[in-house]
Amino acid sequence: MSGCPMGGHPPTGPDSAPAELPASRLSRRNLLSLAGVGGAAAGLAAGFFGHDTVAAMAADTTPAPADDSVVPFHGDHQAGITTAAQDRLHMAAFDVTTTKREDLIALLKDWTEAAEALTKGLPAGATGAVDGPYGAPPEDTGEALDLNAGRLTLTFGFGASLFEKDGVARFGLDGRRPEALIDLPHFPGDDLDPARSGGDLVVQACADDPQVAVHAIRNLARIGFGRARVRWSQLGFGRTSSTSRAQQTPRNLFGFKDGTNNLKVEDAQLLDEHVWADSTRPQDAWLAGGSYLVARRIRMHIEIWDRTSLGEQEGLIGRTKGTGAPLSGGGEFTDPDFALTGRADKPLIPLDAHVRIAHPAQNGGVRMLRRGYNYTDGSDGLGHLDAGLFFIAFVNDPRTHYVPMQMAMAKTDTLAVEYLEHTGSGLFAVPGGVQPGGYLGSGLFS
Amino acid sequence: MSGCPMGGHPPTGPDSAPAELPASRLSRRNLLSLAGVGGAAAGLAAGFFGHDTVAAMAADTTPAPADDSVVPFHGDHQAGITTAAQDRLHMAAFDVTTTKREDLIALLKDWTEAAEALTKGLPAGATGAVDGPYGAPPEDTGEALDLNAGRLTLTFGFGASLFEKDGVARFGLDGRRPEALIDLPHFPGDDLDPARSGGDLVVQACADDPQVAVHAIRNLARIGFGRARVRWSQLGFGRTSSTSRAQQTPRNLFGFKDGTNNLKVEDAQLLDEHVWADSTRPQDAWLAGGSYLVARRIRMHIEIWDRTSLGEQEGLIGRTKGTGAPLSGGGEFTDPDFALTGRADKPLIPLDAHVRIAHPAQNGGVRMLRRGYNYTDGSDGLGHLDAGLFFIAFVNDPRTHYVPMQMAMAKTDTLAVEYLEHTGSGLFAVPGGVQPGGYLGSGLFS
Repeated sequence: MSGCPMGGHPPTGPDSAPAELPASRLSRRNLLSLAGVGGAAAGLAAGFFGHDTVAAMAADTTPAPADDSVVPFHGDHQAGITTAAQDRLHMAAFDVTTTKREDLIALLKDWTEAAEALTKGLPAGATGAVDGPYGAPPEDTGEALDLNAGRLTLTFGFGASLFEKDGVARFGLDGRRPEALIDLPHFPGDDLDPARSGGDLVVQACADDPQVAVHAIRNLARIGFGRARVRWSQLGFGRTSSTSRAQQTPRNLFGFKDGTNNLKVEDAQLLDEHVWADSTRPQDAWLAGGSYLVARRIRMHIEIWDRTSLGEQEGLIGRTKGTGAPLSGGGEFTDPDFALTGRADKPLIPLDAHVRIAHPAQNGGVRMLRRGYNYTDGSDGLGHLDAGLFFIAFVNDPRTHYVPMQMAMAKTDTLAVEYLEHTGSGLFAVPGGVQPGGYLGSGLFS
Repeated sequence: MSGCPMGGHPPTGPDSAPAELPASRLSRRNLLSLAGVGGAAAGLAAGFFGHDTVAAMAADTTPAPADDSVVPFHGDHQAGITTAAQDRLHMAAFDVTTTKREDLIALLKDWTEAAEALTKGLPAGATGAVDGPYGAPPEDTGEALDLNAGRLTLTFGFGASLFEKDGVARFGLDGRRPEALIDLPHFPGDDLDPARSGGDLVVQACADDPQVAVHAIRNLARIGFGRARVRWSQLGFGRTSSTSRAQQTPRNLFGFKDGTNNLKVEDAQLLDEHVWADSTRPQDAWLAGGSYLVARRIRMHIEIWDRTSLGEQEGLIGRTKGTGAPLSGGGEFTDPDFALTGRADKPLIPLDAHVRIAHPAQNGGVRMLRRGYNYTDGSDGLGHLDAGLFFIAFVNDPRTHYVPMQMAMAKTDTLAVEYLEHTGSGLFAVPGGVQPGGYLGSGLFS
């Protein structure tokens, strides 16, 4: 290791640190601009403007123009569920390595504080990446210093293994595991990698800039050091769902529009019915405004798919590839007519078409809010890309809103049977939103 | 498999196919708009507008407004070298599986044709994703149908193993392997995974939208079926270099600005001197306007780095973390003063600082054009993110412009020795640019 060189970092005082300015007025970029040229931020800002000027800037309460790169962190629900789906994903699951309840609570408090800052586009920690003492590790890793908040949302969930492992309760959470936080059954065709499945905690970072999402996960992992470690992590390069009617429907790696019939933020009543968790049991009060997150890493056999005819592809999906209209006619958002028949009285939408088998009409009316992403993780060693869909769905109860549909698909949906392989899986209870001064999942520990 | 459902696809005639319109006037999005609602594109467009209208549209030679999402494919040099670095990368190396010279030539011709279309934002193949016969696999996989060209560039290179394997020449290329296309030596600390190294062919896809880059690689792989297979593939989520003075310097996963001193498109004379390959030997004429691409997958031990003090981090890099100014003072673009000393006559820029060891002044004046990307590939199974820098550099001769510097870094650069681990490696000769009517690397086969 090299020694500590001179120069660059004059000592900083709390009265002059830009990190002390109201967070809403300062982006990561502002912090650096304040620093001027050369050296590090805080002290230099004071030197350049003079302490009085910096103090005056701190006292200036003029509201800043709204920053449309910021999604509010606080609310009744966690952000990142009905938030208009951002373009990029980094999701990570963690194993909690401490056995102490107070360490877990401290971790959730630290993560809450960091998430509040990161989602504003601020560095994690009061002194951030460049304003801390020269002899200590920075409180932020720095790779997002020049970037705005990128519509970052951080959504946290708790796996069943946080509540109990091998039948033994953990962290004093006896009897607190929600009934809906089941162990998912084995589905036909599952080929799950334990190293890509499960986890005590999960963090879904979504942003329009992947560096912002990766930066957030990386800093939460850093903050978790000694208390939690990364179990698996997944990058998603392109969203496959819209969660607002203002968004265009994106395409999955089969080349088809995906999630046309997704639940959207505008469907308030349907969200109440299908997405927000039941918290009526007293011990589930912490789930008020919460949900359940189903994550499935679904490898697509794209090379085989790519050698399938256009007609067969459209028959398997039940929609046209171009506009995404159902094969029964109309436009993308026309309801499929499953009864309509064509030549030789065959249904226009085949009996085994994905759109038929996954349709609410075939599944007791259940709906889900999907928030999946396309992924590509290198090659499979057999000459193919390792690529597919990282499926994410938020539902109010996986027993009614995920398991039956996935079981039907795994058994009868030719698309799922022949072209999909589930290689990773996770189910997490997502606590309700955080209010200012509160912390993630606090109701679980009170 | 399901049968072919009726409806949706009226037969299309060559006179009405939008793919027949001048490519420059049609983006993938235009193709779909032409198709109107419901069903697939070509025939419906003719039905909607009438054949005469479509023919008139085809004949309309009014120049379209310039599409700033398109980077021209043709030129003296391949695009994707001095092109202002795009935000996202998908790179793949391929093993050629055919043994026939004519198959290899046909593959290069097919890839050239596809690259011409893809870089314009058009689908691969004349009939694209949705305009082909219903009974045949589409010529494009479709996931980029609604996206513009995204400044896509496709840059192709040839590995040493294309020319000879186990001492035996391949594809009639006896004596054609360029002298500079060496086998890279083992560098101290290398921990190369053969499955992430080498390859007969490489394709660098850069774009501002990752779905566009992934789509391009995936379609080239599809086109290569039976002739070439994916050996390795790498996603890069954020650029770590600027290749134009119009771009802001980005940050790597150490949180520092990277590539401040990079060669840029504005440095024409330096590019001639350091980037464009020597093609004076008659058998190297195909390298005129070409270069050499060095690819190194460099895992960063970010968790250890994150526990290192700010002072130590800056000493290891030799620059401040905030502005990227050298520790000898000034701003980001100030030349480092390696002689300047501070307290106790110690140099302000430590002797083992990365900026000193990698500086041209310490390396016989050699420069390189770097085009690397940050990557995150899941976790390492030990509780850490698998993350780092996918290093890409273009140089005129790796013997003079890469090996000595990398050897020095691997031996004496504390940053490289303690925090970096090279896990993948490739060296490729990059042929010159393609002219209309030509194909990639054609000079090698004439």
